Amino acid sequence: MNQVKMGKYRPYPQIDLPNRQWPNKIITKAPKWCSVDLRDGNQALINPMDMNKKLELFTLLLKLGFKEIEVGFPSASKVEFDFLRRLVDDKLIPDDVTIQVLVQAREHLIAKTFEALSGVKKATVHLYNSTSTAQRKIVFGKSKEEIVVLALEGVDLVKKYEKEHDGEIFLEYSPESFTGTELEFAAEISNAVTARWGISSTRKVIINLPATVEMATPNVYADQIEWMANHLDNRENVIISTHTHNDRGTSIAATELALLAGADRVEGTLLSNGERTGNVDMITLALNMLTQGVNPELDFSDINEVLDVVERCTEMVTHARHPYVGELVYTAFSGSHQDAINKGLAYQKNSVDSFWEVPYLPIDPQDVGRTYESIIRINSQSGKGGIAFILEKNFGYQLPKAMHPEIGRIVQAVTDEKGRELEAEEILEIFKDTYFNIKKHISLIDVTLSTNKKVSTCTLTYKYNGEKIVAQAEGNGPIDACKNALMKDYKNEFTINSYSEHSCGDKSTAKAVAYIEIQSKDILSCYGVGKDNDIATASIKAMFCALNRAFS
Amino acid sequence: MNQVKMGKYRPYPQIDLPNRQWPNKIITKAPKWCSVDLRDGNQALINPMDMNKKLELFTLLLKLGFKEIEVGFPSASKVEFDFLRRLVDDKLIPDDVTIQVLVQAREHLIAKTFEALSGVKKATVHLYNSTSTAQRKIVFGKSKEEIVVLALEGVDLVKKYEKEHDGEIFLEYSPESFTGTELEFAAEISNAVTARWGISSTRKVIINLPATVEMATPNVYADQIEWMANHLDNRENVIISTHTHNDRGTSIAATELALLAGADRVEGTLLSNGERTGNVDMITLALNMLTQGVNPELDFSDINEVLDVVERCTEMVTHARHPYVGELVYTAFSGSHQDAINKGLAYQKNSVDSFWEVPYLPIDPQDVGRTYESIIRINSQSGKGGIAFILEKNFGYQLPKAMHPEIGRIVQAVTDEKGRELEAEEILEIFKDTYFNIKKHISLIDVTLSTNKKVSTCTLTYKYNGEKIVAQAEGNGPIDACKNALMKDYKNEFTINSYSEHSCGDKSTAKAVAYIEIQSKDILSCYGVGKDNDIATASIKAMFCALNRAFS
Repeated sequence: MNQVKMGKYRPYPQIDLPNRQWPNKIITKAPKWCSVDLRDGNQALINPMDMNKKLELFTLLLKLGFKEIEVGFPSASKVEFDFLRRLVDDKLIPDDVTIQVLVQAREHLIAKTFEALSGVKKATVHLYNSTSTAQRKIVFGKSKEEIVVLALEGVDLVKKYEKEHDGEIFLEYSPESFTGTELEFAAEISNAVTARWGISSTRKVIINLPATVEMATPNVYADQIEWMANHLDNRENVIISTHTHNDRGTSIAATELALLAGADRVEGTLLSNGERTGNVDMITLALNMLTQGVNPELDFSDINEVLDVVERCTEMVTHARHPYVGELVYTAFSGSHQDAINKGLAYQKNSVDSFWEVPYLPIDPQDVGRTYESIIRINSQSGKGGIAFILEKNFGYQLPKAMHPEIGRIVQAVTDEKGRELEAEEILEIFKDTYFNIKKHISLIDVTLSTNKKVSTCTLTYKYNGEKIVAQAEGNGPIDACKNALMKDYKNEFTINSYSEHSCGDKSTAKAVAYIEIQSKDILSCYGVGKDNDIATASIKAMFCALNRAFS
Repeated sequence: MNQVKMGKYRPYPQIDLPNRQWPNKIITKAPKWCSVDLRDGNQALINPMDMNKKLELFTLLLKLGFKEIEVGFPSASKVEFDFLRRLVDDKLIPDDVTIQVLVQAREHLIAKTFEALSGVKKATVHLYNSTSTAQRKIVFGKSKEEIVVLALEGVDLVKKYEKEHDGEIFLEYSPESFTGTELEFAAEISNAVTARWGISSTRKVIINLPATVEMATPNVYADQIEWMANHLDNRENVIISTHTHNDRGTSIAATELALLAGADRVEGTLLSNGERTGNVDMITLALNMLTQGVNPELDFSDINEVLDVVERCTEMVTHARHPYVGELVYTAFSGSHQDAINKGLAYQKNSVDSFWEVPYLPIDPQDVGRTYESIIRINSQSGKGGIAFILEKNFGYQLPKAMHPEIGRIVQAVTDEKGRELEAEEILEIFKDTYFNIKKHISLIDVTLSTNKKVSTCTLTYKYNGEKIVAQAEGNGPIDACKNALMKDYKNEFTINSYSEHSCGDKSTAKAVAYIEIQSKDILSCYGVGKDNDIATASIKAMFCALNRAFS
């Protein structure tokens, strides 16, 4: 960065807010949401939406629960004019939904806007002009007084056309580039606008304070909102609205802290469309609230549908790590993460506590129509817990916990070698290659088991280093009997350390799976797995597997 | 969201921080940066990096200025062990760079870690264990005391192997899942670790406080950091480190507010790789600092190279709206934005003030190796300023300001119709079709101009509604003479309202471009453009163009 001239950039000024309150607050209820997908979002698309896409997105917004929707700048674009007329003519606007339109303070634009709004029952006219120091100086060459006059002329024009409009008209005023505007001036112009409009408890005004460009850390935006809330006349009849952009990557934070600071309303888009870095993403905002036990009053229970519609309409690609919706956000690559999630999900299932506390998953994927297990990935960092989880969730194998490190290491060696993630099917293959039908120095040919009272009898036919052996013995169960039969001719001493089994598959096709751990003085422990229609035979197979693995 | 059970999620508890200081602070210097791209970033990739990619990314990190680089978990992965050995064996680690490795508190892992570190001059051993309430209860079934014992065993083991290591060893301890841990316990275990290590001014310890999962609004993380800073023993010898993930989309904010709260060090990745939603993006953090006049001590002056290397190594696609680096972040689609940027860039060029204040561009794109003009897009929302800017920047046409609305409307009609953005070349075509060589009711055949003292004489040959006319007149300049010649037979009365010209193209091939605005009692105003090797002829052509457009 040495090539950047010292002094080229200046620190954003701090806000004088002596009795700052917002850091003591928490978010306890949803704000009023206003979607600007069809205006700010659409205007920044490489290919703006056509009529059909706009209709599809509008329908989605209604379904998600939006009650305020900015549909465009109809006086500036024929496409947006036509879209609004289509909504009216086809009676697509529900009675409880307010349609919002953007306009500048010029008579021909306001006249055209009201022409577009004809027949709309509830409409917000969103009047804006830039108030920032830079724009006053560089773009307009206007004094503060002239900028106020411009805004008030706009208010007068909206009032004039309001009289002839058959339906409710709400006023929203934005001192555009608010974050580049002196707070005193932003309050002055906003107060002038609300006074001119004739603000009252039955005639509230939306004062929208846009971070048109994000220019400071998000706590500064919260300070600005709290300062404005303290300095706006008729505060109780002003709806303070945020409209944040993401230039510094902190639009979510700025909006959340602004809500702590007293903002009542949020403008944003789905998945952050909008000029440059985009507007704040309302999916993340809403689901952040949900995970704190606050009802967001927007329905994102089928996030895949939202993703599908928005991506199709905007032709934008969502990042794989986008909070709540990205392809990878419900994955866990680290073995310790996988293990903890595995245990957390099991705990959650059996917990009498009703709240969600699964490690590494801040939200239950099912609450947004997603799953954890279906997209877990296995790569060279994936550990024991993750592999066992895959084998259980996908194929029904419930490996004893003590087996997890071994299968973890074996799978890891393969992923290390291949240098890529493995599919669940590949994990299964590795598992089978390692544990199923292992025939090295010893192989089972036939086994007959009979149990009488508490005594089991096992007749084994097996091959040992090429030699066929038949042996019979009794024991206090099939496994014990089999071990005793083996011991008659088998040269390696071993003991059975642990044993477990379960059925696998649904009822008609279920097989038994057995896991046996053997131990000898030479080996610490070795597992074998067997699978058969008969549970006892599965155990014998598991024992032969373990012997082959231990003494080969 | 009605289907989500009430009470399933709980609000994150507030922090008891009576004398909160961080909201009064600003960031004034860069933190110590530690890249975890090769560890946390790599472990969450669908296809983890192979040796060559790791080497390429490591080389990039050095070039960008990183002095601390976590290279992996060498005791847990052969690939990561081999990579570290490669760095050592090939002498790729500069003397001023500290290599960091992650490890859990187990002797065989720590032994293997030191084996991997053999020959490394400066190494940070990053010891961690999860301390969260959920993991203690669900995953480990361990008491707080047992968790502390585990951490201290790890410290003892690192000290044991440190003795035999030829090189400096630094300790980093992470109470993993810090944001899920009671603050009192996080402080207790951290203080136990630093005491056991033997902290001093020459033996500082990094206490890393990870938002392993982002669980609350970012101000809460700042509160936690400030609380910890107040409760860590030997604060002056503790390096407080942040390690944030982006589950709620506020990792940048959390890190920035944590820096206000006293954090000294930041772990993160380039472009947010890492488990789930990723680690905090250090490019955004660093450039956020740059735009506040703080030297980030990382060099992102060629952001395209960074993007190129990271995307190739990680196989991840960067979002088009990613702050500072996305494809679309230096675009302006709105006409008013384009106009303001246009004026801002012009102002900046001529300004005696040295600081950057171009509307809608929080950073000079050139400071990161990008450009504004090359990627401006024209769509149906683009306005007059943007079109004029395109024509000037790409083709050298300096349209008079009063022409901007007309060309804006004309281009917009085409984009409305086509429903997509236009290329600069297409804009040029529209411009030429509208203004160049327009021959309708009147067309120029020949013109001879002579100027003598203050009198110009114009001899015009032109076709008027199919009739060939030759006329000659004098005037006080070529344009006046031409008008006077025309007036002899031309039926429409008009006056010349404004006139401007400039040369276009470089010296050897430069042509003159003239813009003439005419007015009559029937038309308010109409522009014509002419281009010719001769400046006077260009003016005459412009006049004919205006007449054809005005009276056709």
